[in-house]
Amino acid sequence: MARNASLSGFPEWLPEERLVEQHVLDTLRRTFELHGFSSVETRAVETVGQLLRKGEIDKEVYALSRLQDDDGNAAAAAKADPNQLALHFDLTVPFARYVVENAGYLSFPFRRYQIQKVWRGERPQEGRAREFTQADIDVVADGELPFRYDVELALVIAEALSALPIPAFKLRINNRKLAEGFYRGIGLSDTAGVLRSIDKLEKIGAEAVANLLKNELGATDEQAAKALALASIRTEDTSFVAAVRALGVTDELMEEGLSELEQVIAAAVKSAPGSVVADLSIARGLDYYTGTVYETVLVGHEALGSICSGGRYDALASKGNRKFPGVGLSIGVTRLVARILSQEFAKASRSVPTAVLVTLVDEDSWSDAQDVAAALRARGISTEVAAKADKFGKQIKYADKRGIPYVWFTDESGTHQVKDIRSGEQVVADPAVWMPPATDLVPQIVQA
Amino acid sequence: MARNASLSGFPEWLPEERLVEQHVLDTLRRTFELHGFSSVETRAVETVGQLLRKGEIDKEVYALSRLQDDDGNAAAAAKADPNQLALHFDLTVPFARYVVENAGYLSFPFRRYQIQKVWRGERPQEGRAREFTQADIDVVADGELPFRYDVELALVIAEALSALPIPAFKLRINNRKLAEGFYRGIGLSDTAGVLRSIDKLEKIGAEAVANLLKNELGATDEQAAKALALASIRTEDTSFVAAVRALGVTDELMEEGLSELEQVIAAAVKSAPGSVVADLSIARGLDYYTGTVYETVLVGHEALGSICSGGRYDALASKGNRKFPGVGLSIGVTRLVARILSQEFAKASRSVPTAVLVTLVDEDSWSDAQDVAAALRARGISTEVAAKADKFGKQIKYADKRGIPYVWFTDESGTHQVKDIRSGEQVVADPAVWMPPATDLVPQIVQA
Repeated sequence: MARNASLSGFPEWLPEERLVEQHVLDTLRRTFELHGFSSVETRAVETVGQLLRKGEIDKEVYALSRLQDDDGNAAAAAKADPNQLALHFDLTVPFARYVVENAGYLSFPFRRYQIQKVWRGERPQEGRAREFTQADIDVVADGELPFRYDVELALVIAEALSALPIPAFKLRINNRKLAEGFYRGIGLSDTAGVLRSIDKLEKIGAEAVANLLKNELGATDEQAAKALALASIRTEDTSFVAAVRALGVTDELMEEGLSELEQVIAAAVKSAPGSVVADLSIARGLDYYTGTVYETVLVGHEALGSICSGGRYDALASKGNRKFPGVGLSIGVTRLVARILSQEFAKASRSVPTAVLVTLVDEDSWSDAQDVAAALRARGISTEVAAKADKFGKQIKYADKRGIPYVWFTDESGTHQVKDIRSGEQVVADPAVWMPPATDLVPQIVQA
Repeated sequence: MARNASLSGFPEWLPEERLVEQHVLDTLRRTFELHGFSSVETRAVETVGQLLRKGEIDKEVYALSRLQDDDGNAAAAAKADPNQLALHFDLTVPFARYVVENAGYLSFPFRRYQIQKVWRGERPQEGRAREFTQADIDVVADGELPFRYDVELALVIAEALSALPIPAFKLRINNRKLAEGFYRGIGLSDTAGVLRSIDKLEKIGAEAVANLLKNELGATDEQAAKALALASIRTEDTSFVAAVRALGVTDELMEEGLSELEQVIAAAVKSAPGSVVADLSIARGLDYYTGTVYETVLVGHEALGSICSGGRYDALASKGNRKFPGVGLSIGVTRLVARILSQEFAKASRSVPTAVLVTLVDEDSWSDAQDVAAALRARGISTEVAAKADKFGKQIKYADKRGIPYVWFTDESGTHQVKDIRSGEQVVADPAVWMPPATDLVPQIVQA
């Protein structure tokens, strides 16, 4: 169970919890690299001007000021200064800047993953921290980005999430073109307004959404009913296409969206059956995205919110006439790890990397013990040497307390032996040859 | 060569540079874990009260404020508030707090490594950034920490640095007890004052230091000469002991320091011959530390400053009557990586993780190509699939531009083949069996 953080919204883990987090991070890194994504890190700070380019979430930004600035009011004054430095609140804005700045040194389509902390000054609550780690993947092109990357990224993310010690997930996918074209096709031109209303579906229910559409957007009963009918479509295969067609709406943009979503769903269902759903109610993010949109929930933990979201931007970034379209997803690592720990979905088999403690017969044996330890480490076995020649029992107790499974010792005849302190079993062993079983070599992350 | 950062003092790396940094970080992590150090991360922020406990470097701290705080002057007012949040400037202060907060959940002596970014609002210059990564190891005890850990940490650090793609280094070690006892033994009671003067030796020279000692601390000619004689002792073995004794000073604390330093040097020289020196001129840090002190320079790059420093604290932290003594070192990762890149000590053999590009014969072959890619990835081969069925030459050009060494294709007869695009050599291959040579499997970090 995760320990309470001493500062609300800034979680910290104990060593055995950190092992679970490292396992998650290592698994994501490995999956992303196997798919050809390069690692990039950006600085933690951006200028306020850069962060607020989209004018969205300024309330959540932490601005920086030198504590002992010469001008006592510098920090307050700087709030209006677009060159003021502030902590990044996501990895998309910094990546867009990085791409523009380094366009001459990158080869496109550029595939990158980025795993870093981000900060938001929001009120902390379950699943929402002020400091948290995100793991993003994006593919960005210089000019045109083939649609197929929208399909590929769904596969990569499904593979990455499948490799984590978490319960079943549902990757919900929609397409902005489909929704926008459909609304236009039924005569509702304020498509953004419709999306904002539909977004409230889960919270306020269908009837209230229908009233919103009618009262605020001037929709007829029939229009409202059709918009809600579209949002009710959820299929785990490509049958959503027929379900949309059955609503009798024709629109060119809608057809484009239907075809795109069909391709994504067909490929993703084949690759991760049961984990993917075409969910035409997904409206969140449709404001920023221009095509495919993804969000992901843990089955049985829907209240936790999305653990992985993203989509396609026609212009992730631009530089003069040059456009850099992108498609990407972001995994909420801290949200996931906090849930894994609090629900004990997985835990570490021990809290230390150490597999072997080399004990001391007497103080003079320390140097020999170092040689034994070096021989073990050379073969990848994490080893500590006792710091003092305490009684053997006390040295074993130290190993036991730290969760180290094996102690190494030299018997009266000078023979090396190794003892499994859990079973008590001991064997004669050669430091150049002996190996612990693979499950003891490094801490294992054991799924519940 | 490292690209210029768009914000001075906040370095960012290109993907091929990041590979070098990742290699450094992975190597350090592996070495630390092989020696039984657990990973810990602390939050990026501390309260100002916590950070300034030692009242030292307040000029360098970045304070945080909510950009859109209700009270426009909150940030300015908060400067006097010890609960104000600020970014940590090292990993020692946060670790001390973490140990105290979690003492009930840790088993002591607690061995941890911590690799994170830190921030200092200093004027950026060569080797000094405003955002940089540190890699720290510490052992901390609850009550008493055996001296042997001072020896062990020197060995761990020497092993870690030896594994990095850097030139020869010198780990310079001194002991505060030795220096303090010696000064006391020659009748100079303001030992801190003597240390501050000796610290200027490299900058202002021996004569000026002698004048400082005489004019400011009231030293006699003979006392000044002896203090300078001590500071001139540098030996790559334990002969410094005889050299100190030859100065004819007797003091109990000095003897304790001599014995400690002798143990550290004897063991470290054995383990890393040529890389360790007893350097009795080292004064930096003696103010904070209470015994062993370490600092490290790259041979031929002394002007870069110390790349790894640390020492023993009698009380890293305390909680009521409980004391937590510690010994630890901190590696300046960003400083090292910047130097590795600018001097081309090492570079990545390619900029992408991808070893194989699976090409497309036609658009319909994408799904089959995914199956080939999955088979390769299942055996750890990083693989991309072409996004479009462009002409074969164009697909090869894409691979070439990205530095991907192999392309996979299906010939007219439907047979799988793989082509090394550097040599042009191609072979019939089975996706379930074919492996590239180990040097092509993942990007190699090649030392110059």
